[in-house]
Amino acid sequence: MTIIYYNGEFRDDQVTLDYNDRGYQFGDGIYEVVRVYDGRLFTAREHFERLVRSAGEILITAPKTVDEYIEICEQLIEKNQLADGNIYIQVTRGVAVRNHAFPEHAEPVTLMYTYEAGRPLKGMQDGVKVITAEDIRWLRCDIKSLNLLGNVLNKEKAVRAGAVEAVQIRDGVVTEGASSNVYIIKDGTIYTHPANNLILNGITRQVIKECAEELLIPFHEETFGPDELLAADEVFISSTTLEVTPVVQVDEKVIGGPGPVARKLQQAFDEKIQTGR
Amino acid sequence: MTIIYYNGEFRDDQVTLDYNDRGYQFGDGIYEVVRVYDGRLFTAREHFERLVRSAGEILITAPKTVDEYIEICEQLIEKNQLADGNIYIQVTRGVAVRNHAFPEHAEPVTLMYTYEAGRPLKGMQDGVKVITAEDIRWLRCDIKSLNLLGNVLNKEKAVRAGAVEAVQIRDGVVTEGASSNVYIIKDGTIYTHPANNLILNGITRQVIKECAEELLIPFHEETFGPDELLAADEVFISSTTLEVTPVVQVDEKVIGGPGPVARKLQQAFDEKIQTGR
Repeated sequence: MTIIYYNGEFRDDQVTLDYNDRGYQFGDGIYEVVRVYDGRLFTAREHFERLVRSAGEILITAPKTVDEYIEICEQLIEKNQLADGNIYIQVTRGVAVRNHAFPEHAEPVTLMYTYEAGRPLKGMQDGVKVITAEDIRWLRCDIKSLNLLGNVLNKEKAVRAGAVEAVQIRDGVVTEGASSNVYIIKDGTIYTHPANNLILNGITRQVIKECAEELLIPFHEETFGPDELLAADEVFISSTTLEVTPVVQVDEKVIGGPGPVARKLQQAFDEKIQTGR
Repeated sequence: MTIIYYNGEFRDDQVTLDYNDRGYQFGDGIYEVVRVYDGRLFTAREHFERLVRSAGEILITAPKTVDEYIEICEQLIEKNQLADGNIYIQVTRGVAVRNHAFPEHAEPVTLMYTYEAGRPLKGMQDGVKVITAEDIRWLRCDIKSLNLLGNVLNKEKAVRAGAVEAVQIRDGVVTEGASSNVYIIKDGTIYTHPANNLILNGITRQVIKECAEELLIPFHEETFGPDELLAADEVFISSTTLEVTPVVQVDEKVIGGPGPVARKLQQAFDEKIQTGR
């Protein structure tokens, strides 16, 4: 039996969600996924700081502080004896009779649960295939919200094409994957989309930036187009669950690799995991 | 006690939603709101045809036929002795362990419930104020999906400004309201955004088009910008719950009215309600 955290209580995983929860009818909420390695949280503080920020951007006051969320995570890890896996957290605006505008009296609803997951070793080792797809999402992709249908549809396209990710393109610019950030390497420099309203500034992206700086690899937050993607020396994607995953094929174009820059970043990232950063 | 319909059963309104319902974590589903006047469904067939289309566009097979949905509505009206109100229907992709791509085995989850609501007589009589706001939504607004956060944020902006609706503008073009279609009248002609991927083709919009044709009022599905909105002879908005609601003020600009075209359309629409169309 899994123990989850729901609205202030630890309980078994049968919870009676209200169908008037605005998360269910409007996607009116935000979320995070935090990685656990060997029973220890990884970059949890950064994730919960982003959770609080995402909530604030849609005018939800996060019900707990970053330290309190971390404490709940520690308890969930212990209660579920989680070694390697993830903790999912979502906060919705609360329960109210359906109406687009915010309800006057609603308390945010918090759900947190754990699940086991290994590291993506095969993809990290061999590299993966991705497809390109049109980025049809809203213009506040910097908010990690529950409105994920655009991401879902593109991820499904990828899976149906035998790929692991859809690299999204908006107005001739590569933004990010359906659930990852996207990077190219050209002449030894890493390029990735600037952290603005069109992408989610991944916590893994921020760690990779740190790694690049430590390795003295130039890291440029600049836009690039699909032509530069296909002509890159290396391509890789990153996320909490994908870590640094090299891309060896984009649509029908073989990129090759995994290349040396991705390998160095994987090693540096692995050291952060081992030392708890 | 309200009787709702949930996954094939009529039951009281305490249902145990699964937190792994993809409606709750991805907004992965679609919905409709159908009007009931004096115990009778209004344009229910059109709403359920659109429900089936919306589902199909995100690759969900609607679990029931249009006739079956209408039959369930009739039963909900009777069980709840609903006279004037609405029926809310949503269908999600189903319950599965969280993963962006579609689950291999998931059955769609259907929720239908009724609630009482009167006609918007005061706004129809006096006209309402609206604000303008940036349209930040995704590029498939033709799908009536549960990803409503962009709509929610703009509707809230409107309410905080003492208005009833936010008229959304994308790239210099008026698209639609946060939960309504938008029309201007200039020199006796009605203009409204074409029914493409940037707006929801409202069922009320379609009835209004019929009314305009019967009244020999030119109805042009053409884009217009904020300047034309402010310079219009009349402005009105429509939705299942707003019917034909005249707009007398946009931001700080007084449009005036309600004008004669809106009045004629209200009358024609009312006749459709009385005759059951």
